[in-house]
Amino acid sequence: MLEYAAPVRDMQFVIGEMIGYERVAALAGCEEVNAELVDAVLEEAAKFAAGVLAPLNRVGDTEGCRLDGDVVHTPAGWREAYAGFCEAGWPSLAMNPEFGGQGLPKLVATAVSEMWDSANMAFGLCPLLTNGAIEAIEQHGDDTLRERYLAKLVAGEWTGTMNLTEPQAGSDLSAVRSRAEPNGDHYLISGQKIFITYGEHDLTDNIVHLVLARLPDAPEGTRGISLFVVPKFLVNDDGSLGARNDLRCVSIEHKIGIHGSPTAVMSYGDNGGAVGYLVGEANRGLMYMFTMMNAARHAVGREGVSIGEAAFQHALKYARERVQGQPPGASERAPIVEHADVKRMLMTMKAQVEAMRALSYVCALAYDTAELHPDDEVRARATRRGDLLTPIVKGWSTETAQEIVSLGVQVHGGMGFVEETGAAQYFRDARILPIYEGTTGIQAGDLVGRKTLRDGGTAARELIADMELTLANLAAADGEAAVARDALATGIVELREVVEWLVAGADDPQLGAAAANHYLMLSGIVCGGWMLADAAGRAVAAIAAGSDDPCYRAKLAAAAFYATQIMPRASGLKRMILDGAVVVAGLDTAVL
Amino acid sequence: MLEYAAPVRDMQFVIGEMIGYERVAALAGCEEVNAELVDAVLEEAAKFAAGVLAPLNRVGDTEGCRLDGDVVHTPAGWREAYAGFCEAGWPSLAMNPEFGGQGLPKLVATAVSEMWDSANMAFGLCPLLTNGAIEAIEQHGDDTLRERYLAKLVAGEWTGTMNLTEPQAGSDLSAVRSRAEPNGDHYLISGQKIFITYGEHDLTDNIVHLVLARLPDAPEGTRGISLFVVPKFLVNDDGSLGARNDLRCVSIEHKIGIHGSPTAVMSYGDNGGAVGYLVGEANRGLMYMFTMMNAARHAVGREGVSIGEAAFQHALKYARERVQGQPPGASERAPIVEHADVKRMLMTMKAQVEAMRALSYVCALAYDTAELHPDDEVRARATRRGDLLTPIVKGWSTETAQEIVSLGVQVHGGMGFVEETGAAQYFRDARILPIYEGTTGIQAGDLVGRKTLRDGGTAARELIADMELTLANLAAADGEAAVARDALATGIVELREVVEWLVAGADDPQLGAAAANHYLMLSGIVCGGWMLADAAGRAVAAIAAGSDDPCYRAKLAAAAFYATQIMPRASGLKRMILDGAVVVAGLDTAVL
Repeated sequence: MLEYAAPVRDMQFVIGEMIGYERVAALAGCEEVNAELVDAVLEEAAKFAAGVLAPLNRVGDTEGCRLDGDVVHTPAGWREAYAGFCEAGWPSLAMNPEFGGQGLPKLVATAVSEMWDSANMAFGLCPLLTNGAIEAIEQHGDDTLRERYLAKLVAGEWTGTMNLTEPQAGSDLSAVRSRAEPNGDHYLISGQKIFITYGEHDLTDNIVHLVLARLPDAPEGTRGISLFVVPKFLVNDDGSLGARNDLRCVSIEHKIGIHGSPTAVMSYGDNGGAVGYLVGEANRGLMYMFTMMNAARHAVGREGVSIGEAAFQHALKYARERVQGQPPGASERAPIVEHADVKRMLMTMKAQVEAMRALSYVCALAYDTAELHPDDEVRARATRRGDLLTPIVKGWSTETAQEIVSLGVQVHGGMGFVEETGAAQYFRDARILPIYEGTTGIQAGDLVGRKTLRDGGTAARELIADMELTLANLAAADGEAAVARDALATGIVELREVVEWLVAGADDPQLGAAAANHYLMLSGIVCGGWMLADAAGRAVAAIAAGSDDPCYRAKLAAAAFYATQIMPRASGLKRMILDGAVVVAGLDTAVL
Repeated sequence: MLEYAAPVRDMQFVIGEMIGYERVAALAGCEEVNAELVDAVLEEAAKFAAGVLAPLNRVGDTEGCRLDGDVVHTPAGWREAYAGFCEAGWPSLAMNPEFGGQGLPKLVATAVSEMWDSANMAFGLCPLLTNGAIEAIEQHGDDTLRERYLAKLVAGEWTGTMNLTEPQAGSDLSAVRSRAEPNGDHYLISGQKIFITYGEHDLTDNIVHLVLARLPDAPEGTRGISLFVVPKFLVNDDGSLGARNDLRCVSIEHKIGIHGSPTAVMSYGDNGGAVGYLVGEANRGLMYMFTMMNAARHAVGREGVSIGEAAFQHALKYARERVQGQPPGASERAPIVEHADVKRMLMTMKAQVEAMRALSYVCALAYDTAELHPDDEVRARATRRGDLLTPIVKGWSTETAQEIVSLGVQVHGGMGFVEETGAAQYFRDARILPIYEGTTGIQAGDLVGRKTLRDGGTAARELIADMELTLANLAAADGEAAVARDALATGIVELREVVEWLVAGADDPQLGAAAANHYLMLSGIVCGGWMLADAAGRAVAAIAAGSDDPCYRAKLAAAAFYATQIMPRASGLKRMILDGAVVVAGLDTAVL
């Protein structure tokens, strides 16, 4: 039995039936994307994930990475797996064909990356970070940087990193102190960066660091931060590797989880300064980072889907095998999956994973549409939608993933607390998700401030209007689809009430800050209910059209479960905001 | 700065002001228990917890226990700490004076044990399990067993264990297979037991195992299980240690947390059978276990309080020191405690810990009252109350502890995910709590079946009636106490609705099983709101009487926060039950 079997059918359902290939094929360069192509990609990726990456997940955890001098050794088997990953062309799947990419939409890459991270999240972080470096150089670098670095990064021959955090500058990047001194055609970078994912490793010959630093005359705060490319090995004009740059990994962190992913403390310029190349214009580094942030935050939210799916599969398998106790009315001992509370736990995992998956893919389509749709108005609207959904996908999916992996442990009982069953690893690995690429608090603040209040609620109201279209489509539904519809109707009312309360109170930022977390979770829960109500409608139609594919019955069950077991949380959140934000905002820290 | 400072003032508030010494002094043997005595005990315990146990918490985690042959070595410093613990007389605090105990009520022992487990939960598990063994022998053992074992156990000179679980018998003890063959004045025990906390260690010369096993002619299932005392070393008639018994630790588990507490796989009878002595009558072992279960489950619920308090103190300290970002309206960067969302997280931790503490102590008083009150009717009512509250204290406090320790990590941001700050250890250690001594699912089933339905809702209605007394006492309240009162009023309505729904549907056990978890959490949340509303009323009175003790202002803030930020969850839970239990009960496992 495989450790992990990719949920290809549900991915096909979301991409092909909920979203629809006609919406993908309407995008520039995606005219050829259809079910046949995507199915083939998904099947191949599923094989690689299950056959190569999943078997290395546990060794990544138990062996972890090892720092020897300034060299980081990845766990046994990872070099070979990474080589195979590149050989199969996976790094370039959704990259720009100009630099060797295969040009598939982010929507498809999202499904494929979901598989990597379900199978082995610590491994998947390496390409995830490389994607960020590619995007930074492609969008903001000059031709020299693009020509010198992109083809190798796109092919996976080199990897990339993002160097933002410093000990005194975590969530608050305005406090960045690393320095960049002009020196001819380049800069000399110095400073210490922490929490650098795959900052050092033995998978590739070179590592391309993207580093935030300040020029000598830079203004204080966020307006004085520039972005630099700082390669581990300098690159000669012919593309070959030159001298070792003045940077090194000084330590790697001992973490709760993702032990296979080296989290480095990087020191730049111990011997005079690391050679770095300015990306774009000076002092605009933070703005460039923000343009990449949607993709990175979306990817982390999607990691929540990945690890939730993996934990669910793992717990379900155990629950079907483990015999314990007699359910009420049963005549003999039964697998624990037959116990009502275990079913409840498993469906709480499954229904939320499916809701998160659908929202994550819908958000990816918004990115694709914002970039590739021929119509300006459609692009603008998709940009607003992607911007709005990003903190929701990131914050809600990663927080919900905590619940899911913890339930995965709980289903295992005592065996969940011991490491050998593997449920523990998902629990530990997942804990990073609500922290990196902006904590949930940062996502919540972004959702309130930049994404809801800045446009006076426009994007949020557009989202609610789309939810109402789904409601309208379900007007005649009965059974489980009607249960999902009615819960969505309630959720819409609650979400709208909170949005209008926020917009009306926009002059009191303390109140918005106090409400932000609950607003984020409320938005996520209602979006999830929207996704599953929409899915239920399509399942009903497919069954009515004669399909006996069991996925439709399962989808209806998930939708009704979510409607009655998850959506009621939204009412509580609304009350915490409307009646309670004032209490939170008024808290004197002396009473803590 | 200390790692942990016991919340002595809040303990005094709960014991002395919420409960009141007159209720303690009314109990047989507790006539001398007063504020002076208890304050002295709490102060001494606080010193031991902070000075001796807390400094060993981290080494317990990093070094863990080590199995060498069949000997388990505890972490560096633990032997000395345990010796000091016994020398100071802590093991015997609430034990029977007949066997050398000091006879203090469980209420006081609960506060003291809270300190041990906040400081070092892995250490605290050793006396916790010993208490279970003492109770078993004292309540059900014959004079020989009592005379031979109790004085040593009470003094802490020997420790005790509970051997229930076997690989095929976890939550379902009816599947126990270990065997006991009669052999003269004793039995020969054989079988394998797993998850035996402190099943082997180097802290004491002897270990007294309480073991569930079957006699050759025993009936199948739960009615054929007997309880045995099986010492590591046999005890001679003069009390000296004799031969090594035929039992050994074959391995210890590699766990998510509580690394300092050895979790042993024990093998009995590899060489013919371990000498064991029957406790009480044959085939009544499971019933004896049940009589001890209240205390053990209460203790685990109280561990939730402990680790929640420790995680809160740790996070608060970090939040007061860590400077990051500018809160809205502030003119410069500030410690993160000033950010609204961080205040929200910290108060979510604090308010729930205080609610859990109060309920845990109130439950301990119910046990004391059930045992020691001179009036039969009062004892009977206290028995019902303790029985009802036990699964709530266990289930709700340990599940809520998961939220609290996870928030503790979150407040630390990236530093929370690395091990060096210590927030991670609380997160990992706490994960066992909803599992051992009966999973949350087991507690929830117990609350529905044995504690609510079996007496037709009597105990639950008595509890609700007591909550209404608190409401009545707060009729004239305003400000924060009124906020707490109004939320309690809503919560009472919701709890009553669910209780009556359960009682009315008692003929459908599937429905009760599907609702059980939510009913447990709803009960806990409303009980917590009850505790804090009651506390708020007392705080208002103290302030009105002229007190300027800051603890009263803080208590009012916690009560208002809980009322607006936590109590609304109860509404959602009610809907999940009334509208949703039928959906859970009807789930076909094929859709998972």
